[in-house]
Amino acid sequence: MIVVMEQGCSQEQIEQITAHIEGKPGLSAHLSSGTERTIIGVIGPASPDFRNELEQMPGVNEVVPISKPYKLAGRDMHPDDTIIKVGDVSIGGDEVVVIAGPCSIETEEQLMSTAVAVKNSGARILRGGAFKPRSSPYAFRGLGVEGLKLLSKAGKETGLPVCTEVMTSEDVDVVAEYSDIVQIGARNVQNFMLLDTVGKLKQPILLKRGFATTYEEWLLSAEYIMAGGNPNVILCERGIRTFETYTRNILDVAAVPSIKRLSHLPIIADPSHGTGRWHLVPTMALSSVAAGAHGLIIEVHPNPDRALSDGPQSLTFENFDKMMHGVRAVANAVGTHVASATS
Amino acid sequence: MIVVMEQGCSQEQIEQITAHIEGKPGLSAHLSSGTERTIIGVIGPASPDFRNELEQMPGVNEVVPISKPYKLAGRDMHPDDTIIKVGDVSIGGDEVVVIAGPCSIETEEQLMSTAVAVKNSGARILRGGAFKPRSSPYAFRGLGVEGLKLLSKAGKETGLPVCTEVMTSEDVDVVAEYSDIVQIGARNVQNFMLLDTVGKLKQPILLKRGFATTYEEWLLSAEYIMAGGNPNVILCERGIRTFETYTRNILDVAAVPSIKRLSHLPIIADPSHGTGRWHLVPTMALSSVAAGAHGLIIEVHPNPDRALSDGPQSLTFENFDKMMHGVRAVANAVGTHVASATS
Amino acid sequence: MIVVMEQGCSQEQIEQITAHIEGKPGLSAHLSSGTERTIIGVIGPASPDFRNELEQMPGVNEVVPISKPYKLAGRDMHPDDTIIKVGDVSIGGDEVVVIAGPCSIETEEQLMSTAVAVKNSGARILRGGAFKPRSSPYAFRGLGVEGLKLLSKAGKETGLPVCTEVMTSEDVDVVAEYSDIVQIGARNVQNFMLLDTVGKLKQPILLKRGFATTYEEWLLSAEYIMAGGNPNVILCERGIRTFETYTRNILDVAAVPSIKRLSHLPIIADPSHGTGRWHLVPTMALSSVAAGAHGLIIEVHPNPDRALSDGPQSLTFENFDKMMHGVRAVANAVGTHVASATS
Amino acid sequence: MIVVMEQGCSQEQIEQITAHIEGKPGLSAHLSSGTERTIIGVIGPASPDFRNELEQMPGVNEVVPISKPYKLAGRDMHPDDTIIKVGDVSIGGDEVVVIAGPCSIETEEQLMSTAVAVKNSGARILRGGAFKPRSSPYAFRGLGVEGLKLLSKAGKETGLPVCTEVMTSEDVDVVAEYSDIVQIGARNVQNFMLLDTVGKLKQPILLKRGFATTYEEWLLSAEYIMAGGNPNVILCERGIRTFETYTRNILDVAAVPSIKRLSHLPIIADPSHGTGRWHLVPTMALSSVAAGAHGLIIEVHPNPDRALSDGPQSLTFENFDKMMHGVRAVANAVGTHVASATS
Repeated sequence: MIVVMEQGCSQEQIEQITAHIEGKPGLSAHLSSGTERTIIGVIGPASPDFRNELEQMPGVNEVVPISKPYKLAGRDMHPDDTIIKVGDVSIGGDEVVVIAGPCSIETEEQLMSTAVAVKNSGARILRGGAFKPRSSPYAFRGLGVEGLKLLSKAGKETGLPVCTEVMTSEDVDVVAEYSDIVQIGARNVQNFMLLDTVGKLKQPILLKRGFATTYEEWLLSAEYIMAGGNPNVILCERGIRTFETYTRNILDVAAVPSIKRLSHLPIIADPSHGTGRWHLVPTMALSSVAAGAHGLIIEVHPNPDRALSDGPQSLTFENFDKMMHGVRAVANAVGTHVASATS
Repeated sequence: MIVVMEQGCSQEQIEQITAHIEGKPGLSAHLSSGTERTIIGVIGPASPDFRNELEQMPGVNEVVPISKPYKLAGRDMHPDDTIIKVGDVSIGGDEVVVIAGPCSIETEEQLMSTAVAVKNSGARILRGGAFKPRSSPYAFRGLGVEGLKLLSKAGKETGLPVCTEVMTSEDVDVVAEYSDIVQIGARNVQNFMLLDTVGKLKQPILLKRGFATTYEEWLLSAEYIMAGGNPNVILCERGIRTFETYTRNILDVAAVPSIKRLSHLPIIADPSHGTGRWHLVPTMALSSVAAGAHGLIIEVHPNPDRALSDGPQSLTFENFDKMMHGVRAVANAVGTHVASATS
Repeated sequence: MIVVMEQGCSQEQIEQITAHIEGKPGLSAHLSSGTERTIIGVIGPASPDFRNELEQMPGVNEVVPISKPYKLAGRDMHPDDTIIKVGDVSIGGDEVVVIAGPCSIETEEQLMSTAVAVKNSGARILRGGAFKPRSSPYAFRGLGVEGLKLLSKAGKETGLPVCTEVMTSEDVDVVAEYSDIVQIGARNVQNFMLLDTVGKLKQPILLKRGFATTYEEWLLSAEYIMAGGNPNVILCERGIRTFETYTRNILDVAAVPSIKRLSHLPIIADPSHGTGRWHLVPTMALSSVAAGAHGLIIEVHPNPDRALSDGPQSLTFENFDKMMHGVRAVANAVGTHVASATS
Repeated sequence: MIVVMEQGCSQEQIEQITAHIEGKPGLSAHLSSGTERTIIGVIGPASPDFRNELEQMPGVNEVVPISKPYKLAGRDMHPDDTIIKVGDVSIGGDEVVVIAGPCSIETEEQLMSTAVAVKNSGARILRGGAFKPRSSPYAFRGLGVEGLKLLSKAGKETGLPVCTEVMTSEDVDVVAEYSDIVQIGARNVQNFMLLDTVGKLKQPILLKRGFATTYEEWLLSAEYIMAGGNPNVILCERGIRTFETYTRNILDVAAVPSIKRLSHLPIIADPSHGTGRWHLVPTMALSSVAAGAHGLIIEVHPNPDRALSDGPQSLTFENFDKMMHGVRAVANAVGTHVASATS
């Protein structure tokens, strides 16, 4: 990192900073005097807290970090793309992997019919929520373990790996028992205890971006999981919160190529939450694939206007199938590919 | 809520909506035809999910909620201010209650010297972090239970009630054992499982606003705690995230009078996190008190440039004392008051 | 619009509102009483200012507008897409029209070489800035009229229509003299006097979205131009400002399908300003075309690291040509097309 | 500024950068090699465009500016506060100067009665809009020159200096003829041509912050005016746009102490636009004064529910008078003062 001194700071202050840096094992200071300001480079592996210390010292104007704070998630030390295997599906390579299913698991019939439909249209992984984060305590919060069992059963019957969200450390074991990919939702992206806990799992983790999370914070949350021992993190862009109210969020499509530059981890897009409006979902799915997303996660429901949650952003089977044709064409245009429809 | 139909929707669609509403127990529909559009009022207690259902139906342009979704936290049903007692301190009335202490508990000496200093300057409650949320897994994450014990001891020795953060449901019992107020941090404002768990405590809960949380979402998070059985929620504005990077966050001072209008719960301000720069803290503390805040929470450290976390936003004992003089004067000017300094 | 009364408002207040509405020529009131609140519908063409009046009256909780405030720009009254002709180029139909050229016009050679290169790669319109908005008064602000002459000459020699920005009403005539499309930049999207002035031109207007402009405000700015007499407005999404700092802006790709739903006007995307990083431009161009953009506007420079403005977001000739191959493939995949390369 | 090189950049790239810097007259390069990266300091007065050049060169990761880009507006070169005289009023010192009046000038009677009322309550300057920026072309846009004449007359009759907005360079002369302070509105904060034009005036300029303008951009806009020859710029915080919709904007109260640190120019607050809700205006006025604002600008109307613009945020005479009592008390508490009421 670089310490930028105030204009007119004293020679003594400069020496204090220099001494403070060199007092830390493994660090050295490198002085550089400009016409307007003095800057001091910190050479060596400084801890994140050391920046705070320096910023507080007299004569310091600001401290500019240079190295990226995420080491395991960053591309600097790991130049090759990470490819994550789930059953016979590979995420992070040339296949655009489509994960689809209902927002909430409601009944066996609802889930099974959706699983069969999305599989027939080319989805490779089944999603479904058993534990649902809801803004209001009075809204439907999911079937819990009963939902997990239905999901696991539907996965086995269709041969699709399954993905579902966990909301608290206490549920991690039971969610892990029934699912192939464990999802951390947007509201828990900085629930650090939960990140620690899923860092001990063997399953890949689908880590959604929070709606006000920077790329750096997001990759640091991935770093928590990786530092805990689980290297298989799939990042998922799901829209950020802005002043615009027409869409529920703004899907930050540029996160796809940006994260690919900063990190070796796979990144997929969630146009369902990213827009909150079903009629925008297919277009934004195409857009994400054109931007190079390694996958998509899409909410599908047999009867969206009867859905217990997120109805307005769910696709019907027919609309999902139509979307998949478009996704396939765009993937081909950019040199990737999508599984064939089997129906 | 009100259903606004598309221009040119069919008579049949209007009838479908009307029938759908009247098919729900306790609800009735009220039709109103404008020159451009038809609107249908939903009369009766509709569930949050019912809005989703309606929004998805053919012919519907949008659904506009009218009633507030929070019932227990809202002022509509509870017009009088809630005053929360902690020991002999009352939060929510005419006294501006100052909570102060270090960001992280580091050593007994650091904590005790801070506790004595802030008490002498007029603080009524001691804060200190034992479990620390940190963006990076490599940063100092707090002393844990050992920190809780130090905090409890410092509270007893000074006679100050103590306040500390809990980050996961598993720690709720131990945190509750050692603290008088349990804090939910900004990153956990929508950690609904944790909200459920602290809803079962007897202690008051200090609920920080998340950095991208709307007033409505924030009050719904309070509603979680209240619906769980704990009516004693203290709200804390701590800054929101915007495009401006000079300050760490933008302290939304207008949240104070706005929340007082929407809710009967006490609301305090956190200028330390709200600015991230110690030299702005005193000014924004005064500003918050002038806006009617029921209290302040302030980070104080014996030696901020050696702090293991949040040094750049911590006040020295001397600056805290100076701030308290200003706070006292402004409180008097707006008809509230602050405890006297005892040193 | 709909007037939502406070809970517990008096019968007299309701009658005052009703009388106030019915006192306006052409308006009538329609009363609807719920279990919790009374709402009053305003039937007829209310002015935007009338909403303000009502919101201020005693007993009123809020006023919810129902009709869209833009009439000429909106799709409600004009269901078919508008196609705008510029020379032999049509914007708004199935061709994805690529506008390309340097951010600033610097020299005849720089401009001519760029014009020839982008034409050969398939661009249909030449862009180039003669009047440049710059945050700092000390930055290069463009060649002015001399630049306009060079642009016009380059357009004639290559046969490409030309597009350039106007920043003030006083320059509208001279800019109109030399250009085929007149651009209003992001910072002037609510410079209403300038909008009025270009409303009198015959040329199409390229209206960029401001970096904190809602869809509604943007369409109202188009409405200014259209109400002034110029129906030919091309909208251009160029990124919005958020908390994320890695990219210069967040390109709101969902604006493309959203605006197509709200308005009949053509909409194009500007991935150069939308990202501020040249290496993200091709990807986001593809993404925008997959989302259905009617065109792209791209900054190209013979030697970006010598550019007098916006170098970091400009493409070299080679990268632009490569991008055009990708754009062509994606356009074909979504049922649109891009002009052939001629070199 | 500092050039941070990519990890693994070549020695040749480092030499190219160094040579490029040293090839510019007055600049020299200063090399510093860390364990992970090489950084190159640029010593000397580099132009804003030179940063762009460097960022584009091969091997460069990022370029970090160190010096502030505003020289005339910044405090570095001008440590003492600027105090601006308007008639016998001084802005920028210990008096909190209150500017008040209607949003729009509507009639002579409306304006005169307001002028008298606000003067009696302690306002020192009269505001009133003759040219009104409105999102919709169909809203009331002000009385124009007729309004200016009424304003000037009201100022003379009450002895109050007057302040009004100019929206386009063409109107600068006529606005300057009739007013003592010329206001640039939020939407024109980066209308650089208009900034250039008012830079030639003798009158002080009231420069509002745009709703998505950073402190740096805002001070650069002040720099435009100052570089044009007019050193008398009064900054006005009026709220920024965020995700929260309860208030029209978020009044960034921390802008007051932040700008006072960065700049020597006076800074005032506009709680009327900053909240958009009249019932929040008095509280946020107090809050701004507690934060050290040099003044306030407040919308007052004899009959807010009949106002032709901004009614919901205007105070009645009575509420304004009540607010002034509170403002006076808070000012005294923080060591400033407000003019006495004369009625």
